[in-house]
Amino acid sequence: MNDQSVLITKKFEFSASHRYWREEWSPEKNEQVFGLCTSPYGHGHNYELHVTVSGKIDPATGMIINLTDLKKHVSTVVVQFDHKYLNVDTPYFKDQIPTTENIARVLFDLIDQELQGKGDFRLHRIRLYERHDLYVDVWRGEK
Amino acid sequence: MNDQSVLITKKFEFSASHRYWREEWSPEKNEQVFGLCTSPYGHGHNYELHVTVSGKIDPATGMIINLTDLKKHVSTVVVQFDHKYLNVDTPYFKDQIPTTENIARVLFDLIDQELQGKGDFRLHRIRLYERHDLYVDVWRGEK
Amino acid sequence: MNDQSVLITKKFEFSASHRYWREEWSPEKNEQVFGLCTSPYGHGHNYELHVTVSGKIDPATGMIINLTDLKKHVSTVVVQFDHKYLNVDTPYFKDQIPTTENIARVLFDLIDQELQGKGDFRLHRIRLYERHDLYVDVWRGEK
Amino acid sequence: MNDQSVLITKKFEFSASHRYWREEWSPEKNEQVFGLCTSPYGHGHNYELHVTVSGKIDPATGMIINLTDLKKHVSTVVVQFDHKYLNVDTPYFKDQIPTTENIARVLFDLIDQELQGKGDFRLHRIRLYERHDLYVDVWRGEK
Amino acid sequence: MNDQSVLITKKFEFSASHRYWREEWSPEKNEQVFGLCTSPYGHGHNYELHVTVSGKIDPATGMIINLTDLKKHVSTVVVQFDHKYLNVDTPYFKDQIPTTENIARVLFDLIDQELQGKGDFRLHRIRLYERHDLYVDVWRGEK
Amino acid sequence: MNDQSVLITKKFEFSASHRYWREEWSPEKNEQVFGLCTSPYGHGHNYELHVTVSGKIDPATGMIINLTDLKKHVSTVVVQFDHKYLNVDTPYFKDQIPTTENIARVLFDLIDQELQGKGDFRLHRIRLYERHDLYVDVWRGEK
Repeated sequence: MNDQSVLITKKFEFSASHRYWREEWSPEKNEQVFGLCTSPYGHGHNYELHVTVSGKIDPATGMIINLTDLKKHVSTVVVQFDHKYLNVDTPYFKDQIPTTENIARVLFDLIDQELQGKGDFRLHRIRLYERHDLYVDVWRGEK
Repeated sequence: MNDQSVLITKKFEFSASHRYWREEWSPEKNEQVFGLCTSPYGHGHNYELHVTVSGKIDPATGMIINLTDLKKHVSTVVVQFDHKYLNVDTPYFKDQIPTTENIARVLFDLIDQELQGKGDFRLHRIRLYERHDLYVDVWRGEK
Repeated sequence: MNDQSVLITKKFEFSASHRYWREEWSPEKNEQVFGLCTSPYGHGHNYELHVTVSGKIDPATGMIINLTDLKKHVSTVVVQFDHKYLNVDTPYFKDQIPTTENIARVLFDLIDQELQGKGDFRLHRIRLYERHDLYVDVWRGEK
Repeated sequence: MNDQSVLITKKFEFSASHRYWREEWSPEKNEQVFGLCTSPYGHGHNYELHVTVSGKIDPATGMIINLTDLKKHVSTVVVQFDHKYLNVDTPYFKDQIPTTENIARVLFDLIDQELQGKGDFRLHRIRLYERHDLYVDVWRGEK
Repeated sequence: MNDQSVLITKKFEFSASHRYWREEWSPEKNEQVFGLCTSPYGHGHNYELHVTVSGKIDPATGMIINLTDLKKHVSTVVVQFDHKYLNVDTPYFKDQIPTTENIARVLFDLIDQELQGKGDFRLHRIRLYERHDLYVDVWRGEK
Repeated sequence: MNDQSVLITKKFEFSASHRYWREEWSPEKNEQVFGLCTSPYGHGHNYELHVTVSGKIDPATGMIINLTDLKKHVSTVVVQFDHKYLNVDTPYFKDQIPTTENIARVLFDLIDQELQGKGDFRLHRIRLYERHDLYVDVWRGEK
């Protein structure tokens, strides 16, 4: 079984609110582009985050990464987003709209950094669901 | 088949944000009771609303209520909650915390009123999911 | 634990197609009432059927009904609907529209009859999903 | 809104294994009645437990029961079942088969006792899923 | 964050019916190969379609594609399949069986053409569920 | 449509129990690494297995593989795991811990062998869910 590729994925959840609005645009243009998402005090979602990790399976444990460790590392990131108003309560969306695309990109970078140096594994990909019918995948770019 | 009871249920969805906070309580007491839900700018959820209607089945159509009508009536209520910050953008939570219990009670009353006089059917029950693992049922009280 | 009420529910699935159309109505009236469901050659769904059975728990087996038996009894009904065009391939919708309400009522009666005399249990309720967001409950009527 | 009935439900999860076997029966009879569930070292499931609580909504908090409290109370029960071989690791199935019906009845009694005297609320009903297509409901019996 | 690859996926739904039958084969051969799917008046499914789009994230909007636009473009395709008998009501299955594989291939081509020239994005992949336990993925072929 | 890549996936289910334990480690080390999974008599899960097959679409049938055949081939593998205590009832985990990673690798090899020589298709990938929030992907390794 030496020629197999293996990935493990764990789901996490957080609830947050956000608003789509560009100050430099007129209210009319904001509404035209962002629709209901311009609601002034924001609105919210239950986000579901799939964290996929690659690495060698440790023959002693049969694991790519111990799930207790994975939960600990990812939670240090997720806690910054859970029960927050993303535009105001986090530093990540001062210069960019907290769309699913942008939230996913920020989460990929934060989790990727968090996992570095922690073991013989690596963040492979994340998938972020904003709703059950909308999700974004982010992985290390192909150059 | 005359001795059957029949109910029909349609699911609706909306995304909203809310905050749990009582001004007359100290910040410490608010945090003790409401935990993360005290986050000052609110947080959000994808709510799922099950609307259950009772009535006679019309022999001509085979329907308790035409779903096109049901969607129209319920949407006039849901649109008030969708993409809103419930504490501020709706008039219903000035004097009560927008918990799942209270949101569900408000929705029951609003949809019940909306359906009255529209046909030979009646709102029987609603179920409101705040998350996939938390929901509230509301129906006409037993006296 | 003598004062507990207990119900057991098993889900079944079938795929079928149907059409909503009344010959005695004009095409215009059919379209007005039934919309897309008037499509002349029918359309289809994956139906999910929840069969709920009540009865005493047998102290020897710990079961209200042996699931092997339940599957056998319900399957004799479901096989009549699975992979069928309900309007034509079954005898049940010659005089009534195969709405979710009517399909559920027919299924309740057929399964109720099938379970009678088979043991110390009884059909309590069925729930029929036409889609994930639309379902009908049928149970023995309250007189 | 004084004439409404309200229930709140929270889902919990645990993973366990079990075996169906009666020592006083022959292996043949055990296999005939219990089929694959007689497998000598047991097999397992991810159980999903819905705990439904009734009570007055506290006007100050908008809650029937604080979810932090509900989780604490129910967890003292669930921890006895999670990652266990139910026949051996718990005292509840020495004299009865750990069917979904019996596990649900035991859970109802244990959670009911746990919630008593803890506040102005009461266990109303539990639903226990053994698999996504099989569940049991237990509530206080009607006499 | 310049070295990230990002995809966005939106789910759509439609209900349709179909039949598997080759006129040039005997009824016996049709039944042997296609089983229940040979039912003469067809049967149906709730199809779930995942549409995955690749492209640059617009720094102004934070979006690969505006979901309002994506829904508009995909809906012009889905409307041809929704509430239809695929063999008869669409021109795509005159010379091929409307299996999940073939329906998915047709949908990929139609959506791919629909998105071309509409912006700085491209159809990357579709996934089509015929049932919750059966799905097909189609993407641009590797040559 | 000659330049499309197509995959078909079918889900299967089985229920099993397992234990994580290394005899050559102290109980303390076992608990530290494996936590609750060291429970002496094992615990269990409902596993969900996605089997993805690649191949040419047969122009006569519109299929990569006939699902009746796929079910038959995969079932000869799944039956070895269903309702089993994986550590004892199967020969595959004598020298390795039955983690999700290792179970998935074993399943990939067994199903891959089972499909070989059966037709113009090939096992492409499997995904194994241990729970709804934990899954492993295995595919042919990249060298």
